[in-house]
Amino acid sequence: MTTPNIDQANSAAVERMMSARPILTGVATARDVIPGMKDNLLLHAGPPIEWEQMSGPMRGAVIGGLIFEGMAKDEAVAVSMLKAGEIEFSPCHEHGSVGPMAGITTASMKVYVVENITHGNKAFSNLNEGYGKVLRYGAYSQEVIEKLRWMNNVVGPLLADALEAIENGIDIRALLAESLHMGDEGHNRNKAGSTLFAAKLAPLIAQLAKEKSVAAEVLQFLGNNALSVLNPVMAACKAMADAGHGVEGSTVMTVMARNGTELGIRVSGLGAHWFTGPVGQPDGLYFPGFTADDASGDIGDSTITETVGIGGFAMAAAPAIVTFVSGTPHDAINATLEMYEITVAEHEHFTIPALDFRGTPTGVDIRKVVELGITPRINTGIAHRDAGVGQVGAGLVRPPMNVFEEALVAYAEKYGFA
Amino acid sequence: MTTPNIDQANSAAVERMMSARPILTGVATARDVIPGMKDNLLLHAGPPIEWEQMSGPMRGAVIGGLIFEGMAKDEAVAVSMLKAGEIEFSPCHEHGSVGPMAGITTASMKVYVVENITHGNKAFSNLNEGYGKVLRYGAYSQEVIEKLRWMNNVVGPLLADALEAIENGIDIRALLAESLHMGDEGHNRNKAGSTLFAAKLAPLIAQLAKEKSVAAEVLQFLGNNALSVLNPVMAACKAMADAGHGVEGSTVMTVMARNGTELGIRVSGLGAHWFTGPVGQPDGLYFPGFTADDASGDIGDSTITETVGIGGFAMAAAPAIVTFVSGTPHDAINATLEMYEITVAEHEHFTIPALDFRGTPTGVDIRKVVELGITPRINTGIAHRDAGVGQVGAGLVRPPMNVFEEALVAYAEKYGFA
Repeated sequence: MTTPNIDQANSAAVERMMSARPILTGVATARDVIPGMKDNLLLHAGPPIEWEQMSGPMRGAVIGGLIFEGMAKDEAVAVSMLKAGEIEFSPCHEHGSVGPMAGITTASMKVYVVENITHGNKAFSNLNEGYGKVLRYGAYSQEVIEKLRWMNNVVGPLLADALEAIENGIDIRALLAESLHMGDEGHNRNKAGSTLFAAKLAPLIAQLAKEKSVAAEVLQFLGNNALSVLNPVMAACKAMADAGHGVEGSTVMTVMARNGTELGIRVSGLGAHWFTGPVGQPDGLYFPGFTADDASGDIGDSTITETVGIGGFAMAAAPAIVTFVSGTPHDAINATLEMYEITVAEHEHFTIPALDFRGTPTGVDIRKVVELGITPRINTGIAHRDAGVGQVGAGLVRPPMNVFEEALVAYAEKYGFA
Repeated sequence: MTTPNIDQANSAAVERMMSARPILTGVATARDVIPGMKDNLLLHAGPPIEWEQMSGPMRGAVIGGLIFEGMAKDEAVAVSMLKAGEIEFSPCHEHGSVGPMAGITTASMKVYVVENITHGNKAFSNLNEGYGKVLRYGAYSQEVIEKLRWMNNVVGPLLADALEAIENGIDIRALLAESLHMGDEGHNRNKAGSTLFAAKLAPLIAQLAKEKSVAAEVLQFLGNNALSVLNPVMAACKAMADAGHGVEGSTVMTVMARNGTELGIRVSGLGAHWFTGPVGQPDGLYFPGFTADDASGDIGDSTITETVGIGGFAMAAAPAIVTFVSGTPHDAINATLEMYEITVAEHEHFTIPALDFRGTPTGVDIRKVVELGITPRINTGIAHRDAGVGQVGAGLVRPPMNVFEEALVAYAEKYGFA
C-alpha cells in the first residue's frame, strides 16, 4: 500500500470545495428530486437517530412533518405511528440534502435545487419558514402547518417559476461573497444575503405571480425574513462540501451536523462513516423570558456553513452579529483568526474586508484539531428543549473533541498512520 | 452683547441634528412642494453659480434639464436661452433640497419628500437615475432624457403610491443605522441601504402597479441600482443638518456642497452666508479607459452625508469600499478616527460595529478644522470634465481650508471673538 501524501490530498479536497460553483437552479418537490426520498421517510438534521433518542424540538418537528404530510391527523396518531415503527428516518446529509435546526424534510415538501456546475453534483434544502412558531424549532400547531402548506402551495411554485425564468440561475457563491462584504457571516447572520436574494427575485415574482396580491404576500414574506437565503446557502454549502468529499487520504472534514442529541462529522478520506459524540449547549444570548435552562442541545445541518469556511469561521466579516450571539467585535475577529489554525486554506472567493480581504479559513483538518486541541467554532440559533416552543436565543458552541479523535483513529486504521 | 458659550451652542446644534428623525413620506412634483420652485428656475448642487462659471458636467446637466422640461428642443436652443439669461439658477440647498453630482432639479421633476418629525422641517431630493449615461453626471442625450421621463411618469408616481400606502413612511435614520451595520457608509456605498429600500417597497410596488410588467420594470430598476437610496438618504441628511442650523453662537458646519467649480459651506451660527473656495480634485480609482486628467472638479450636494456624520466620516463601517475608492481597510478605519478630531459628538444612532459600536463622528466644528489643520474627508463619485460623458471613477477629496478660515473670521466679526 502506498502512503498517501496527506497535505496533497487535503489541498485537493479543499481546492474542490472552493472551485465548486453552486447555482440555485430551481425549486421542486422532495420526492421528485432528492435521491432515495419516499413517502414514509423523514429526513432529519445531523447524524442518524431514531425516535426514542430524539430531543424535544426534533420530536416536535417529526410530529409536525407527519401532520403536514396528512399521514397523521394529530400528535397522538403521529406518536403511535412512530412507536409502531411505521416511519423511517434518515439524515438529510445521506441524501444530498441539508435542513436548518430539526431539518425535517418530507416527501411532499418543496426544496431548493442547487447544482455545482463545476463538478456536477446537486444538493437540496427545504424552504425557510421565517421566525416565530416554526417546524424547524419543533413547533407543530395548526398555524405552523398552515404556514407550511401556504409555503408549499404558493411560495414554492412561484419561486420555482421565478428561478426558471432566470437564465443560468442564481450563483450562490457569488451572492455569499457579496454578503460577506455586507456584514453577514452566512450562517446566523444572513440579512444582506436574504435582502439581495429578495431584491433579485422581486421583479420576477411581480411578473409571474397569478395575482398581484400573491406577489405582494410572497415579497413581504421574503423581505421580512433575514434568514430567507439561509436554506439555499446551506444547499450551496452542501454542494461545495460534497465536492471535497471522497478524496483518498484526505483528513478534511466534509460534514459537521447535529441532530439535537449527537453531533456527527464525516471526513473526506473516510467514506460515509459518521463519527459522533454528544452535542454541546450553545453559549449565547437568550430572548426575553428564556434562559440557558430552556435550551435544547445543539441542533441542525446549518454547520455545513462552517464546514466550507463561512458562518462561525467568518465572524470577522460580521462584527454586528455580536449583538445577537454575545461577545464583542474583537471576539468576532479572534474567532476567525483562531480558525486559521485548524484549516487547510484561505478561501479564494470568500474574503473578509476587515482582515485586508484575507480569504476565510476553509477546510478543517482533523489532525490539526486533535493536535492543537482547537475545535471548530459554530455560530447557531438555540431551540427550546421542549417540542413546539421554538427559538429561544442564539449563540456559540463547539463540537465534542471525541469525534475528531475517533476519526483520526479510524484514519490511522484505514491508512496505516495519521 | 452676551458672549455665547460656543461649546454649549455646538452641543445644542448637534443634539438637534442627531434627534432629527427624517421620515420619507412621499414623492411629489418639485413645483408643488419645493419652496420657491418655479418653471424657469433650475436648482443645482453646491453654492450659487451662474452659467458662465459652470463646469462641464454641470453645464451638460443644465442643458439636459431644459430639454427634459421641454423648454429647449436641443443643446443649441438651450445654450442660447442660457446666454440670454432666460433661466434662473439657485442652489438646491437654498430650497430645502439636495441633489447628487450636478444636482439639477427642475420644476416638473418628481422629488422625494422627507419630513423631520422631531422638529417639523422638510427636505427634498430628486430620484436616482442609476448608472451609465445620467443627467447628474452631465449626460443629456435622447436616451438620458427618455429615462428621466420614464422615471417621472412611471417610477415616481408608483413610488408615491407605495409610500402613501406605508403607514408612517420609511424611517431613513433607522434604515441608515441598519445599513452602517451592513458595510455601507451612506454616501458612496449604499448597497445595503438600497437593497433594504427596494425589498421594503417591493410588496407595495407589486400590489399597486397598474400592470405586472410595470411592477417588474420598476423593481428591476431599483434592484439593479446600489445607489437607489442615496437620494432619500441625502434628503434625510439635509433634514437633519437643517435642524442643526441657526443655533446662535454655534460653529458647527451645517452645509458642505460643491458645484464643480466651488465648494461652499454654511455654519449653524452664521445664517445663510456661503463661505466658498475652489473645489479639489478627487484622488481615487478610475474606470477602465479614464485617468485623473479626465476628472471634473469635485461636485454635488452628497457631502450632506459627511455633514451629519456618515459618508467619509463613517468609512470604518464600510471596509469593502476601498475596492472602489482606493486605499486599504486600515485607511478606512483611520479616516473615521481622524474625523473624531474635528467633530463635536459621537452619533447616538449611527454606530460602527468595527469600532465597538462607537457613534460616528458628527458635527464638524470649524474652530477645530482651523486649529488642527484637518479638513473634513469626502467620499465621492468622480465626473468626467466634459459635459455628456458621465462617471469616470470614485475617490476621496477634501474641501479647501480657506472656507473654514473665512467662516471663522466672519464668526469673530459677528460674535466679537472665536
